Amino acid sequence: MRLSARDIARLVDGQLAGNPDEIVTGVAGIKEARAGDITFVAHPRYLSAVKTTRASVILVSPGTEAKTTATLIRVANPSVAFVKVVEHTAPPPVALPPGVHPSASVAGTAKLGKDVRIEAFTVIEENVVVSDRVIIGAGSYIGHECRLGADCRLYPRVTLRERTVLGDRVILHSGVIIGADGFGYHTIEGRHEKIPQVGAVEIGADVEIGANTTIDRGRFGNTRIGRGTKIDNLVQIGHNCMIGEDCIICGLVGMAGTTIVGDHVTLAGQVGVAGHLTIGDNAVVMAQAGVVQDVPAGAMLWGTPAIPHTQFKRAHVAMQRLPELVKRVRELEQQLVEMRGHLDSAR
Amino acid sequence: MRLSARDIARLVDGQLAGNPDEIVTGVAGIKEARAGDITFVAHPRYLSAVKTTRASVILVSPGTEAKTTATLIRVANPSVAFVKVVEHTAPPPVALPPGVHPSASVAGTAKLGKDVRIEAFTVIEENVVVSDRVIIGAGSYIGHECRLGADCRLYPRVTLRERTVLGDRVILHSGVIIGADGFGYHTIEGRHEKIPQVGAVEIGADVEIGANTTIDRGRFGNTRIGRGTKIDNLVQIGHNCMIGEDCIICGLVGMAGTTIVGDHVTLAGQVGVAGHLTIGDNAVVMAQAGVVQDVPAGAMLWGTPAIPHTQFKRAHVAMQRLPELVKRVRELEQQLVEMRGHLDSAR
Amino acid sequence: MRLSARDIARLVDGQLAGNPDEIVTGVAGIKEARAGDITFVAHPRYLSAVKTTRASVILVSPGTEAKTTATLIRVANPSVAFVKVVEHTAPPPVALPPGVHPSASVAGTAKLGKDVRIEAFTVIEENVVVSDRVIIGAGSYIGHECRLGADCRLYPRVTLRERTVLGDRVILHSGVIIGADGFGYHTIEGRHEKIPQVGAVEIGADVEIGANTTIDRGRFGNTRIGRGTKIDNLVQIGHNCMIGEDCIICGLVGMAGTTIVGDHVTLAGQVGVAGHLTIGDNAVVMAQAGVVQDVPAGAMLWGTPAIPHTQFKRAHVAMQRLPELVKRVRELEQQLVEMRGHLDSAR
Repeated sequence: MRLSARDIARLVDGQLAGNPDEIVTGVAGIKEARAGDITFVAHPRYLSAVKTTRASVILVSPGTEAKTTATLIRVANPSVAFVKVVEHTAPPPVALPPGVHPSASVAGTAKLGKDVRIEAFTVIEENVVVSDRVIIGAGSYIGHECRLGADCRLYPRVTLRERTVLGDRVILHSGVIIGADGFGYHTIEGRHEKIPQVGAVEIGADVEIGANTTIDRGRFGNTRIGRGTKIDNLVQIGHNCMIGEDCIICGLVGMAGTTIVGDHVTLAGQVGVAGHLTIGDNAVVMAQAGVVQDVPAGAMLWGTPAIPHTQFKRAHVAMQRLPELVKRVRELEQQLVEMRGHLDSAR
Repeated sequence: MRLSARDIARLVDGQLAGNPDEIVTGVAGIKEARAGDITFVAHPRYLSAVKTTRASVILVSPGTEAKTTATLIRVANPSVAFVKVVEHTAPPPVALPPGVHPSASVAGTAKLGKDVRIEAFTVIEENVVVSDRVIIGAGSYIGHECRLGADCRLYPRVTLRERTVLGDRVILHSGVIIGADGFGYHTIEGRHEKIPQVGAVEIGADVEIGANTTIDRGRFGNTRIGRGTKIDNLVQIGHNCMIGEDCIICGLVGMAGTTIVGDHVTLAGQVGVAGHLTIGDNAVVMAQAGVVQDVPAGAMLWGTPAIPHTQFKRAHVAMQRLPELVKRVRELEQQLVEMRGHLDSAR
Repeated sequence: MRLSARDIARLVDGQLAGNPDEIVTGVAGIKEARAGDITFVAHPRYLSAVKTTRASVILVSPGTEAKTTATLIRVANPSVAFVKVVEHTAPPPVALPPGVHPSASVAGTAKLGKDVRIEAFTVIEENVVVSDRVIIGAGSYIGHECRLGADCRLYPRVTLRERTVLGDRVILHSGVIIGADGFGYHTIEGRHEKIPQVGAVEIGADVEIGANTTIDRGRFGNTRIGRGTKIDNLVQIGHNCMIGEDCIICGLVGMAGTTIVGDHVTLAGQVGVAGHLTIGDNAVVMAQAGVVQDVPAGAMLWGTPAIPHTQFKRAHVAMQRLPELVKRVRELEQQLVEMRGHLDSAR
């Protein structure tokens, strides 16, 4: 990447203030930018960073004035303008023409749609159905009787165990494992006997699942992820969970089995959810919280065990003053003893 | 799946009450069941759910009466009957005949037992020993000198680094990595120098390990997992840990190096355990707790740092009342000042 | 392994006290040693373990006296002597001669340096540059335009997405995924629209990354890991994080996007770090803590939300006494009521 500030002002249709020959060699957020980078300020709350950023060029809103040696470009929507610069300067995406790599091992009974791409060392087992325009990355494993909707994108090294069903436009990142056995045992005289896990997994349309995330198959019936839900890396979803639509589930979240999650729920990073619970629509569970009982719709929780987040925050502040409170109670006790003495002598 | 309530009553030898022609098309737990599903009530505490479940048919204990439009089938043991229905209606398991896939790369010095199955794109390095009836899933990697006991099942994409030893009937789910280097460094003038990790890993008979779990090799000597222990997905076991028999280790647990765990220990989801500790037999560590000192046998802990769980729960309840307690102490202080004034004027 | 105590005393140039014919068949730490093992005591604080260890031979400092039936070998530096024994008895490392396995799929435009080793079923895409003496383990995937420095070691089943850059001597353990898409969406009327992730990942020289760890590519610009930083297993690093040099990041840590970490920072196991923060040089975040604001250089934090660890510890101790404190406040209130009565009757 190598563009002048003048080139960029023209690209985004902006007003340049500063050195038009300033050369831009990279794009970055305002805090992490280095000399040669272009950045942007979308929100007035980041305006103070304009003074301290090391960026060479900054996209700002029309009225913005700031003391800076950086070159400013004023545009109606700096965020949209920045995306335009990013896309203009991004390396072209890798070309992925359709075709089945000769090394792939595809069962004779598998049905492949139009314009699919199957990369090297992929295994597609018996009776799999792959819809049109699906891309399956190198070294992936698609178990018996899986069905993949149109336009799915599986990055290299994805594993789908038998009978997994994907809706249209599902994106699975590398290392994702869908349909491993649920974690279920009968304990008989101290020994754990495996409970057969004969269900499967259904993933709705437009779901995206991050690298090395695991979603277990149902013990019976299916584990389900609703349309449009987005799951980050290294998340564990237990057997028979039923997750609604348009949820956001962040990295390292763990959900035990058979929990029902509504629509538009947010589980922040490293949240844990116990089994057999119900989480209502639009609930938000804050980072690292541990949910051990049902969550009403719209609730916002924090802490382990999780409680309403305003209550948690108040308790957390009070907790830090607890050693001081202990001291104050001790003093009260002493004063009371003292006063009792005075009172007795007064009587 | 498509069975009438009558068919099911016959299958489980039960007494039908309701519509014998009710058609069952799925199996599910009582909370998540939908119209057309069959479910069951094994425990009286779930009896109230009979009124609210959307299931069409419910397996219940002989004496059970409930107001419901669902068809009831009374059987001696509803849980066992339900498993019978699940197994009757489950799709037949995938057939996995023995044989070495022609694409597999098997070293000439590897010894394969009778009736083993080695799937596509598997690598088996020099001097590996694979016992009878072992199944190794597609794309797995079995490093030099590994030894696998009889009837082990490795799902696709398992990695065993050199000299890993598996007992009989070990189940490893996809993405499991056994024997990666332990995390150990000498820090010399701020730089971290790698400590060679020359030990290995031994896994006892009947151990099951979940998807994408990692178990590091010993720095010297071996990391050991005892017979019958079950480990869930995305768990990290550090170098030289020695875990006893019949333990349950849930998803996203992290154990640092060189910790000794007794038999029948339960570590719930997202528990963390520091290094060089000893956890006694039958101890239970509750979800997300952080263990930073030795745990006596039979203890039940919660919180970070972990303390006895009854103490943790009492403290957690009290913590929620802490802002109110602060207010009460402030009032006491004011009253005391006031009383001191009265007392002084009284004297 | 089978050595006499006499052989070992000679190997480490030590003074033997006890049975010179004691046979040693294994090496272990002092707590986990079994009969037949050799162990060592490097620090006086472990001296008491000499009485209870089951080890047959113990390496100790010159002046050490202890009541034990074990054979002692006195050496100037027991820790160094132990490493000598471990290395003497360790099985020879697996031989990994250079060469490209015939099954590997290497693009015609890829450039391979001298003496590289590419194992079976590896995919190397167009325009990749692999420097001298690199080893790429079986079943790995190296995406388009990646550049690998000299002497890198990738264990089996590593995934590098397009345009990842590795410095010299980088070690990536099995299951590592570098360059998967960052977790970023615009939410428009409740639906999450994917933000293109067009940046990449740069890993500095001498970095080591543990099994199944994931490091996301930049949304724009690059995610960066600084020279000499060591990352354990199952860690999640979000898009556009910039991590400094010589840091230690332990297992199951999760970092959201665009956070800047200084040099020599330690994040203990299961720590969570929110996005858009700055963590100063030499900071230490203790296990399971949740960082939600900027961390000054040299700080040591614990708890969620994280606070200075001395404050956290004091509050944690006080919290355990909280139920008792509640009782004391109630008693104070009662006494005050009582005293008020006395005072009133006195007036």
